Amino acid sequence: MKLGQNYKKSNETSYALGASLTYELLIHQTDKVCKVYFHSSFTKSKDIDKFISMCERNRIVYEFNDRIFNRLSDKEKCLVIAEFTKYGMELNQSLNHIVLVNPANMGNIGTIIRTALGFDIYDIAIVRPAVDIFDPKVIRASMGAFFQMRCAYYDSFEDYRKNSKHELYTFRLDGENLLDINTNSSLYALIFGNESSGLPPQFKEIGKGIKIAHNDKIDSLSLPVAVSIALFCFRRK
Amino acid sequence: MKLGQNYKKSNETSYALGASLTYELLIHQTDKVCKVYFHSSFTKSKDIDKFISMCERNRIVYEFNDRIFNRLSDKEKCLVIAEFTKYGMELNQSLNHIVLVNPANMGNIGTIIRTALGFDIYDIAIVRPAVDIFDPKVIRASMGAFFQMRCAYYDSFEDYRKNSKHELYTFRLDGENLLDINTNSSLYALIFGNESSGLPPQFKEIGKGIKIAHNDKIDSLSLPVAVSIALFCFRRK
Repeated sequence: MKLGQNYKKSNETSYALGASLTYELLIHQTDKVCKVYFHSSFTKSKDIDKFISMCERNRIVYEFNDRIFNRLSDKEKCLVIAEFTKYGMELNQSLNHIVLVNPANMGNIGTIIRTALGFDIYDIAIVRPAVDIFDPKVIRASMGAFFQMRCAYYDSFEDYRKNSKHELYTFRLDGENLLDINTNSSLYALIFGNESSGLPPQFKEIGKGIKIAHNDKIDSLSLPVAVSIALFCFRRK
Repeated sequence: MKLGQNYKKSNETSYALGASLTYELLIHQTDKVCKVYFHSSFTKSKDIDKFISMCERNRIVYEFNDRIFNRLSDKEKCLVIAEFTKYGMELNQSLNHIVLVNPANMGNIGTIIRTALGFDIYDIAIVRPAVDIFDPKVIRASMGAFFQMRCAYYDSFEDYRKNSKHELYTFRLDGENLLDINTNSSLYALIFGNESSGLPPQFKEIGKGIKIAHNDKIDSLSLPVAVSIALFCFRRK
Protein backbone atom coordinates (compact mmCIF):
# COMPACT_ATOMS: atom_id res chain seq x y z
CA MET A 1 0.00 0.00 0.00
CA LYS A 2 1.45 3.32 -1.05
CA LEU A 3 -0.77 5.45 1.15
CA GLY A 4 1.33 7.26 3.67
CA GLN A 5 4.53 5.63 2.49
CA ASN A 6 5.98 9.08 2.16
CA TYR A 7 4.39 10.32 5.35
CA LYS A 8 6.31 10.12 8.61
CA LYS A 9 5.12 10.84 12.11
CA SER A 10 8.01 13.27 12.54
CA ASN A 11 6.94 15.35 9.51
CA GLU A 12 5.56 18.79 10.20
CA THR A 13 2.93 18.38 7.53
CA SER A 14 0.44 15.70 6.54
CA TYR A 15 -1.93 15.09 3.62
CA ALA A 16 -5.64 15.06 2.89
CA LEU A 17 -5.98 12.58 0.04
CA GLY A 18 -8.88 13.04 -2.36
CA ALA A 19 -11.33 15.76 -3.23
CA SER A 20 -13.76 15.26 -0.37
CA LEU A 21 -11.07 15.23 2.35
CA THR A 22 -9.45 18.29 0.78
CA TYR A 23 -12.81 20.02 0.73
CA GLU A 24 -13.36 19.33 4.46
CA LEU A 25 -9.85 20.60 5.20
CA LEU A 26 -10.35 23.78 3.14
CA ILE A 27 -13.64 24.50 4.92
CA HIS A 28 -12.70 23.70 8.51
CA GLN A 29 -8.93 24.25 8.79
CA THR A 30 -8.33 26.78 6.04
CA ASP A 31 -5.32 28.40 7.65
CA LYS A 32 -3.50 25.06 8.02
CA VAL A 33 -3.38 24.35 4.26
CA CYS A 34 0.09 24.67 2.71
CA LYS A 35 -0.64 23.67 -0.86
CA VAL A 36 -3.22 21.92 -3.00
CA TYR A 37 -2.24 19.52 -5.79
CA PHE A 38 -4.53 18.71 -8.70
CA HIS A 39 -4.13 15.73 -11.01
CA SER A 40 -4.45 16.66 -14.68
CA SER A 41 -7.54 14.40 -14.93
CA PHE A 42 -9.27 16.63 -12.39
CA THR A 43 -9.66 19.32 -15.05
CA LYS A 44 -12.54 17.19 -16.35
CA SER A 45 -14.32 17.36 -13.00
CA LYS A 46 -17.23 19.75 -12.52
CA ASP A 47 -15.67 20.63 -9.13
CA ILE A 48 -12.38 22.01 -10.46
CA ASP A 49 -13.63 25.62 -10.52
CA LYS A 50 -14.99 25.38 -6.99
CA PHE A 51 -11.64 24.14 -5.69
CA ILE A 52 -9.57 26.67 -7.56
CA SER A 53 -11.73 29.54 -6.40
CA MET A 54 -11.53 28.29 -2.79
CA CYS A 55 -7.75 28.26 -3.10
CA GLU A 56 -7.58 31.69 -4.67
CA ARG A 57 -10.00 33.22 -2.18
CA ASN A 58 -7.85 31.94 0.68
CA ARG A 59 -4.54 32.68 -1.05
CA ILE A 60 -3.56 29.03 -1.04
CA VAL A 61 -0.95 27.93 -3.57
CA TYR A 62 -2.06 25.17 -5.94
CA GLU A 63 -0.42 23.29 -8.75
CA PHE A 64 -1.08 20.60 -11.31
CA ASN A 65 1.35 17.80 -10.60
CA ASP A 66 0.59 14.20 -11.57
CA ARG A 67 3.75 12.75 -10.10
CA ILE A 68 2.85 13.51 -6.49
CA PHE A 69 -0.23 11.29 -6.87
CA ASN A 70 1.90 8.25 -7.68
CA ARG A 71 4.04 9.01 -4.69
CA LEU A 72 1.32 9.59 -2.11
CA SER A 73 -1.83 7.77 -3.04
CA ASP A 74 -2.77 4.18 -3.82
CA LYS A 75 -6.23 5.08 -5.10
CA GLU A 76 -6.80 5.72 -8.76
CA LYS A 77 -9.73 7.92 -7.89
CA CYS A 78 -7.59 10.30 -5.86
CA LEU A 79 -7.25 13.43 -8.02
CA VAL A 80 -6.77 16.13 -5.38
CA ILE A 81 -4.28 16.20 -2.52
CA ALA A 82 -3.84 18.92 0.08
CA GLU A 83 -0.73 19.27 2.20
CA PHE A 84 -1.37 20.88 5.56
CA THR A 85 0.58 21.84 8.68
CA LYS A 86 -0.11 19.63 11.66
CA TYR A 87 -1.62 21.53 14.54
CA GLY A 88 -2.05 21.17 18.27
CA MET A 89 -5.54 20.89 19.71
CA GLU A 90 -6.90 21.47 23.19
CA LEU A 91 -10.00 19.76 24.48
CA ASN A 92 -13.02 21.79 25.43
CA GLN A 93 -13.48 20.93 29.11
CA SER A 94 -17.12 21.92 29.19
CA LEU A 95 -18.16 19.31 26.61
CA ASN A 96 -18.39 15.51 26.84
CA HIS A 97 -15.26 13.51 26.00
CA ILE A 98 -14.15 10.18 24.62
CA VAL A 99 -10.89 8.89 26.10
CA LEU A 100 -8.99 6.28 24.09
CA VAL A 101 -6.28 4.54 26.07
CA ASN A 102 -3.48 3.18 23.84
CA PRO A 103 -5.40 2.90 20.56
CA ALA A 104 -3.28 1.08 17.97
CA ASN A 105 -5.25 0.92 14.74
CA MET A 106 -5.47 3.90 12.40
CA GLY A 107 -8.64 2.82 10.61
CA ASN A 108 -10.38 2.35 13.96
CA ILE A 109 -9.50 5.84 15.18
CA GLY A 110 -10.73 7.31 11.93
CA THR A 111 -14.06 5.49 12.18
CA ILE A 112 -14.41 6.55 15.82
CA ILE A 113 -13.78 10.19 14.88
CA ARG A 114 -16.43 10.02 12.15
CA THR A 115 -19.03 8.47 14.46
CA ALA A 116 -18.20 10.79 17.34
CA LEU A 117 -18.72 13.87 15.16
CA GLY A 118 -22.09 12.52 14.02
CA PHE A 119 -23.14 11.93 17.62
CA ASP A 120 -22.12 15.37 18.90
CA ILE A 121 -18.83 14.50 20.57
CA TYR A 122 -16.09 16.87 19.43
CA ASP A 123 -13.32 16.10 21.92
CA ILE A 124 -11.18 12.96 22.06
CA ALA A 125 -8.39 12.42 24.58
CA ILE A 126 -5.75 9.93 23.50
CA VAL A 127 -3.48 8.33 26.09
CA ARG A 128 -0.03 7.34 24.81
CA PRO A 129 1.37 5.03 23.52
CA ALA A 130 -1.01 5.51 20.64
CA VAL A 131 -1.21 5.84 16.87
CA ASP A 132 -0.41 9.11 15.14
CA ILE A 133 -3.75 10.80 14.50
CA PHE A 134 -2.27 12.92 11.72
CA ASP A 135 -1.41 9.89 9.62
CA PRO A 136 -3.25 10.18 6.27
CA LYS A 137 -4.83 6.75 6.97
CA VAL A 138 -6.59 8.12 10.05
CA ILE A 139 -7.78 11.18 8.19
CA ARG A 140 -9.07 9.09 5.30
CA ALA A 141 -10.89 6.66 7.60
CA SER A 142 -12.53 9.63 9.32
CA MET A 143 -13.92 10.75 5.94
CA GLY A 144 -12.62 14.21 6.79
CA ALA A 145 -14.49 14.40 10.12
CA PHE A 146 -11.01 14.78 11.62
CA PHE A 147 -10.92 18.44 10.64
CA GLN A 148 -13.92 19.25 12.83
CA MET A 149 -12.63 17.45 15.93
CA ARG A 150 -10.31 18.26 18.79
CA CYS A 151 -7.96 15.38 19.58
CA ALA A 152 -5.34 15.81 22.30
CA TYR A 153 -2.58 13.46 23.43
CA TYR A 154 -1.74 12.76 27.07
CA ASP A 155 1.22 10.86 28.46
CA SER A 156 -0.97 9.20 31.07
CA PHE A 157 -4.59 9.07 32.20
CA GLU A 158 -3.65 11.09 35.29
CA ASP A 159 -2.32 13.74 32.96
CA TYR A 160 -5.72 13.91 31.19
CA ARG A 161 -7.52 13.91 34.52
CA LYS A 162 -5.74 16.99 35.84
CA ASN A 163 -8.02 19.30 33.93
CA SER A 164 -11.17 17.23 33.58
CA LYS A 165 -14.11 17.23 35.99
CA HIS A 166 -16.06 14.72 33.90
CA GLU A 167 -17.94 11.81 35.36
CA LEU A 168 -15.96 8.76 34.21
CA TYR A 169 -17.35 5.62 32.57
CA THR A 170 -14.93 2.81 31.77
CA PHE A 171 -15.90 0.22 29.17
CA ARG A 172 -14.82 -3.30 30.09
CA LEU A 173 -16.06 -6.85 30.00
CA ASP A 174 -17.09 -7.02 33.66
CA GLY A 175 -18.97 -3.74 34.19
CA GLU A 176 -22.65 -3.00 34.67
CA ASN A 177 -24.85 -3.57 31.62
CA LEU A 178 -24.98 -0.47 29.41
CA LEU A 179 -28.76 -0.88 29.18
CA ASP A 180 -29.10 -0.56 32.96
CA ILE A 181 -26.98 2.56 33.29
CA ASN A 182 -29.00 5.58 34.22
CA THR A 183 -26.83 8.59 33.89
CA ASN A 184 -27.79 12.08 34.76
CA SER A 185 -24.23 13.23 34.30
CA SER A 186 -24.17 16.74 33.03
CA LEU A 187 -20.67 16.01 31.76
CA TYR A 188 -19.18 12.62 31.00
CA ALA A 189 -16.07 10.96 29.61
CA LEU A 190 -16.41 7.52 28.02
CA ILE A 191 -13.15 5.58 28.39
CA PHE A 192 -12.05 2.72 26.13
CA GLY A 193 -8.93 0.56 26.08
CA ASN A 194 -6.69 -0.88 23.39
CA GLU A 195 -8.15 -3.05 20.60
CA SER A 196 -6.47 -6.25 21.79
CA SER A 197 -5.86 -5.80 25.49
CA GLY A 198 -8.68 -3.52 26.66
CA LEU A 199 -8.16 -1.16 29.59
CA PRO A 200 -5.17 -1.75 31.90
CA PRO A 201 -6.07 -3.18 35.35
CA GLN A 202 -5.73 0.14 37.22
CA PHE A 203 -8.93 1.32 35.49
CA LYS A 204 -10.95 -1.04 37.72
CA GLU A 205 -10.61 1.63 40.39
CA ILE A 206 -11.63 4.46 38.09
CA GLY A 207 -15.17 5.69 37.46
CA LYS A 208 -18.11 3.40 36.76
CA GLY A 209 -17.52 0.18 34.81
CA ILE A 210 -19.85 -0.56 31.91
CA LYS A 211 -20.11 -3.56 29.64
CA ILE A 212 -21.85 -3.84 26.31
CA ALA A 213 -23.36 -7.29 26.69
CA HIS A 214 -22.78 -9.85 23.93
CA ASN A 215 -22.74 -13.63 23.90
CA ASP A 216 -19.54 -15.60 24.44
CA LYS A 217 -19.20 -16.70 20.81
CA ILE A 218 -16.94 -13.69 20.27
CA ASP A 219 -14.16 -12.44 22.53
CA SER A 220 -15.11 -8.80 22.18
CA LEU A 221 -16.73 -6.25 19.93
CA SER A 222 -14.44 -4.25 17.67
CA LEU A 223 -13.38 -0.94 19.21
CA PRO A 224 -15.27 1.34 16.77
CA VAL A 225 -18.40 -0.81 17.24
CA ALA A 226 -18.18 -0.59 21.05
CA VAL A 227 -17.58 3.18 20.96
CA SER A 228 -20.46 3.71 18.52
CA ILE A 229 -22.98 1.75 20.59
CA ALA A 230 -21.88 3.58 23.73
CA LEU A 231 -22.16 6.99 22.04
CA PHE A 232 -25.58 6.16 20.65
CA CYS A 233 -26.87 5.10 24.08
CA PHE A 234 -25.35 8.02 25.98
CA ARG A 235 -26.59 10.53 23.44
CA ARG A 236 -30.22 9.52 23.96
CA LYS A 237 -29.97 9.82 27.74
CA MET B 1 -0.57 -5.87 0.38
CA LYS B 2 0.15 -9.52 -0.22
CA LEU B 3 -2.91 -10.84 1.57
CA GLY B 4 -5.11 -12.63 -0.89
CA GLN B 5 -2.86 -11.79 -3.82
CA ASN B 6 -2.85 -15.48 -4.59
CA TYR B 7 -6.52 -15.92 -3.82
CA LYS B 8 -9.08 -15.58 -6.60
CA LYS B 9 -12.85 -15.53 -6.34
CA SER B 10 -12.98 -18.36 -8.87
CA ASN B 11 -10.81 -20.64 -6.69
CA GLU B 12 -12.49 -23.61 -5.08
CA THR B 13 -10.52 -23.10 -1.89
CA SER B 14 -9.70 -20.18 0.37
CA TYR B 15 -7.41 -19.58 3.36
CA ALA B 16 -7.65 -18.93 7.07
CA LEU B 17 -4.55 -16.89 7.84
CA GLY B 18 -3.12 -17.14 11.33
CA ALA B 19 -3.43 -19.45 14.31
CA SER B 20 -6.66 -18.07 15.74
CA LEU B 21 -8.56 -18.15 12.42
CA THR B 22 -7.25 -21.66 11.74
CA TYR B 23 -8.40 -22.71 15.19
CA GLU B 24 -11.93 -21.38 14.56
CA LEU B 25 -11.99 -23.17 11.22
CA LEU B 26 -10.81 -26.47 12.71
CA ILE B 27 -13.45 -26.28 15.45
CA HIS B 28 -16.46 -25.13 13.43
CA GLN B 29 -15.87 -26.33 9.85
CA THR B 30 -13.62 -29.32 10.41
CA ASP B 31 -14.71 -31.24 7.33
CA LYS B 32 -13.93 -28.30 5.01
CA VAL B 33 -10.22 -28.17 5.86
CA CYS B 34 -7.92 -29.39 3.06
CA LYS B 35 -4.53 -28.81 4.62
CA VAL B 36 -2.81 -26.94 7.41
CA TYR B 37 0.56 -25.23 6.94
CA PHE B 38 2.87 -24.43 9.81
CA HIS B 39 5.75 -21.97 9.65
CA SER B 40 8.96 -23.38 11.12
CA SER B 41 8.87 -20.63 13.80
CA PHE B 42 5.59 -22.07 15.06
CA THR B 43 7.48 -25.02 16.58
CA LYS B 44 8.43 -22.59 19.36
CA SER B 45 4.75 -21.92 20.13
CA LYS B 46 3.08 -23.60 23.08
CA ASP B 47 0.10 -24.24 20.78
CA ILE B 48 1.92 -26.41 18.25
CA ASP B 49 0.96 -29.69 19.95
CA LYS B 50 -2.69 -28.67 20.22
CA PHE B 51 -2.83 -27.89 16.48
CA ILE B 52 -1.03 -31.04 15.41
CA SER B 53 -3.24 -33.24 17.54
CA MET B 54 -6.36 -31.51 16.16
CA CYS B 55 -5.11 -32.25 12.64
CA GLU B 56 -4.25 -35.85 13.42
CA ARG B 57 -7.53 -36.51 15.23
CA ASN B 58 -9.43 -35.23 12.18
CA ARG B 59 -7.09 -36.84 9.64
CA ILE B 60 -6.15 -33.47 8.20
CA VAL B 61 -2.88 -33.30 6.29
CA TYR B 62 -0.37 -30.77 7.62
CA GLU B 63 3.08 -29.68 6.60
CA PHE B 64 5.86 -27.33 7.56
CA ASN B 65 6.35 -24.98 4.65
CA ASP B 66 7.79 -21.49 5.12
CA ARG B 67 7.49 -20.48 1.49
CA ILE B 68 3.68 -20.47 1.43
CA PHE B 69 3.70 -17.79 4.15
CA ASN B 70 5.61 -15.40 1.92
CA ARG B 71 3.17 -16.08 -0.83
CA LEU B 72 -0.09 -15.73 1.10
CA SER B 73 0.35 -13.50 4.09
CA ASP B 74 1.55 -9.96 4.68
CA LYS B 75 1.70 -10.33 8.43
CA GLU B 76 4.91 -11.40 10.11
CA LYS B 77 2.92 -12.84 12.96
CA CYS B 78 1.07 -15.27 10.70
CA LEU B 79 2.59 -18.69 11.44
CA VAL B 80 -0.32 -21.01 10.63
CA ILE B 81 -2.42 -21.13 7.47
CA ALA B 82 -5.30 -23.46 6.71
CA GLU B 83 -6.58 -24.07 3.21
CA PHE B 84 -10.25 -25.00 3.08
CA THR B 85 -12.88 -25.84 0.50
CA LYS B 86 -15.45 -23.11 0.00
CA TYR B 87 -18.94 -24.23 0.89
CA GLY B 88 -22.52 -23.25 0.18
CA MET B 89 -24.70 -22.10 3.05
CA GLU B 90 -28.45 -21.89 3.44
CA LEU B 91 -30.12 -19.44 5.77
CA ASN B 92 -32.18 -20.71 8.68
CA GLN B 93 -35.62 -19.24 7.93
CA SER B 94 -36.82 -19.49 11.52
CA LEU B 95 -34.12 -17.14 12.86
CA ASN B 96 -33.65 -13.38 12.46
CA HIS B 97 -31.68 -12.16 9.45
CA ILE B 98 -29.45 -9.34 8.31
CA VAL B 99 -29.79 -8.49 4.61
CA LEU B 100 -26.89 -6.62 2.99
CA VAL B 101 -27.74 -5.16 -0.39
CA ASN B 102 -24.64 -4.71 -2.60
CA PRO B 103 -21.98 -4.55 0.11
CA ALA B 104 -18.64 -3.57 -1.44
CA ASN B 105 -16.05 -3.51 1.34
CA MET B 106 -14.45 -6.71 2.64
CA GLY B 107 -13.36 -5.33 5.98
CA ASN B 108 -16.87 -4.03 6.62
CA ILE B 109 -18.50 -7.41 5.95
CA GLY B 110 -16.00 -9.09 8.26
CA THR B 111 -16.73 -6.65 11.07
CA ILE B 112 -20.48 -7.07 10.53
CA ILE B 113 -20.13 -10.87 10.72
CA ARG B 114 -18.19 -10.59 13.99
CA THR B 115 -20.72 -8.23 15.57
CA ALA B 116 -23.71 -10.25 14.30
CA LEU B 117 -22.37 -13.45 15.85
CA GLY B 118 -21.88 -11.67 19.20
CA PHE B 119 -25.44 -10.34 19.08
CA ASP B 120 -27.07 -13.70 18.24
CA ILE B 121 -27.63 -13.23 14.52
CA TYR B 122 -26.33 -16.22 12.57
CA ASP B 123 -27.83 -15.64 9.14
CA ILE B 124 -26.80 -12.98 6.61
CA ALA B 125 -28.38 -12.63 3.17
CA ILE B 126 -26.20 -10.87 0.61
CA VAL B 127 -27.78 -9.38 -2.50
CA ARG B 128 -25.49 -9.24 -5.56
CA PRO B 129 -23.46 -7.47 -6.86
CA ALA B 130 -21.43 -7.91 -3.71
CA VAL B 131 -17.98 -8.74 -2.40
CA ASP B 132 -16.76 -12.32 -2.20
CA ILE B 133 -17.34 -13.42 1.39
CA PHE B 134 -14.74 -16.18 1.08
CA ASP B 135 -11.96 -13.71 0.42
CA PRO B 136 -9.29 -14.14 3.15
CA LYS B 137 -9.68 -10.42 3.96
CA VAL B 138 -13.33 -10.94 4.96
CA ILE B 139 -12.46 -13.97 7.07
CA ARG B 140 -9.65 -12.13 8.81
CA ALA B 141 -11.80 -9.06 9.52
CA SER B 142 -14.44 -11.38 11.02
CA MET B 143 -11.80 -12.69 13.46
CA GLY B 144 -12.94 -16.19 12.49
CA ALA B 145 -16.63 -15.54 13.35
CA PHE B 146 -17.23 -16.33 9.68
CA PHE B 147 -17.00 -20.05 10.38
CA GLN B 148 -19.99 -19.93 12.72
CA MET B 149 -22.24 -17.97 10.35
CA ARG B 150 -24.53 -18.77 7.48
CA CYS B 151 -24.11 -16.31 4.60
CA ALA B 152 -26.12 -16.83 1.41
CA TYR B 153 -26.03 -14.91 -1.87
CA TYR B 154 -29.14 -13.85 -3.80
CA ASP B 155 -29.31 -12.36 -7.28
CA SER B 156 -32.02 -9.96 -6.17
CA PHE B 157 -33.99 -8.97 -3.10
CA GLU B 158 -37.07 -10.66 -4.58
CA ASP B 159 -35.03 -13.82 -4.77
CA TYR B 160 -34.27 -13.60 -1.04
CA ARG B 161 -37.87 -12.76 -0.26
CA LYS B 162 -39.27 -15.90 -1.89
CA ASN B 163 -38.49 -18.01 1.15
CA SER B 164 -38.54 -15.41 3.92
CA LYS B 165 -41.57 -14.50 6.03
CA HIS B 166 -39.60 -12.02 8.13
CA GLU B 167 -40.90 -8.61 9.08
CA LEU B 168 -38.72 -6.21 7.09
CA TYR B 169 -36.91 -3.14 8.43
CA THR B 170 -35.00 -0.99 5.95
CA PHE B 171 -32.29 1.34 7.25
CA ARG B 172 -32.21 4.65 5.45
CA LEU B 173 -31.75 8.34 6.13
CA ASP B 174 -35.46 9.22 6.03
CA GLY B 175 -37.07 6.49 8.16
CA GLU B 176 -38.61 6.56 11.62
CA ASN B 177 -36.16 7.08 14.50
CA LEU B 178 -34.69 3.76 15.69
CA LEU B 179 -35.36 4.85 19.29
CA ASP B 180 -39.09 5.18 18.57
CA ILE B 181 -39.46 1.80 16.93
CA ASN B 182 -41.44 -0.61 19.01
CA THR B 183 -41.15 -4.00 17.47
CA ASN B 184 -42.89 -7.08 18.66
CA SER B 185 -41.79 -8.94 15.55
CA SER B 186 -41.23 -12.55 16.35
CA LEU B 187 -39.01 -12.71 13.30
CA TYR B 188 -37.24 -9.81 11.61
CA ALA B 189 -34.83 -9.02 8.81
CA LEU B 190 -32.73 -5.83 9.09
CA ILE B 191 -31.88 -4.52 5.63
CA PHE B 192 -28.90 -2.28 4.82
CA GLY B 193 -27.66 -0.80 1.55
CA ASN B 194 -24.27 -0.23 -0.02
CA GLU B 195 -21.57 1.76 1.86
CA SER B 196 -21.66 4.71 -0.55
CA SER B 197 -25.09 4.70 -2.10
CA GLY B 198 -27.36 3.19 0.56
CA LEU B 199 -30.47 1.25 -0.41
CA PRO B 200 -31.78 1.61 -4.00
CA PRO B 201 -34.99 3.67 -4.34
CA GLN B 202 -37.31 0.66 -4.69
CA PHE B 203 -36.72 -0.14 -1.01
CA LYS B 204 -38.86 2.86 -0.07
CA GLU B 205 -41.82 0.60 -0.78
CA ILE B 206 -40.46 -2.29 1.26
CA GLY B 207 -41.01 -2.91 4.98
CA LYS B 208 -40.64 -0.24 7.63
CA GLY B 209 -38.04 2.50 7.17
CA ILE B 210 -35.75 3.23 10.10
CA LYS B 211 -33.09 5.87 10.57
CA ILE B 212 -30.30 5.98 13.12
CA ALA B 213 -30.41 9.67 13.95
CA HIS B 214 -27.17 11.63 13.80
CA ASN B 215 -26.40 15.29 13.22
CA ASP B 216 -25.71 16.67 9.74
CA LYS B 217 -21.99 17.15 10.29
CA ILE B 218 -21.47 13.72 8.73
CA ASP B 219 -23.14 12.29 5.63
CA SER B 220 -23.77 8.89 7.16
CA LEU B 221 -22.51 6.41 9.71
CA SER B 222 -20.17 3.70 8.48
CA LEU B 223 -22.00 0.51 7.51
CA PRO B 224 -20.61 -1.68 10.33
CA VAL B 225 -21.43 1.05 12.85
CA ALA B 226 -25.02 1.34 11.59
CA VAL B 227 -25.51 -2.43 11.60
CA SER B 228 -24.03 -2.75 15.09
CA ILE B 229 -26.25 -0.06 16.61
CA ALA B 230 -29.30 -1.60 14.93
CA LEU B 231 -28.45 -5.10 16.18
CA PHE B 232 -27.83 -3.82 19.70
CA CYS B 233 -31.19 -2.05 19.79
CA PHE B 234 -33.18 -4.89 18.23
CA ARG B 235 -31.56 -7.48 20.49
CA ARG B 236 -32.79 -5.75 23.64
CA LYS B 237 -36.36 -5.51 22.36
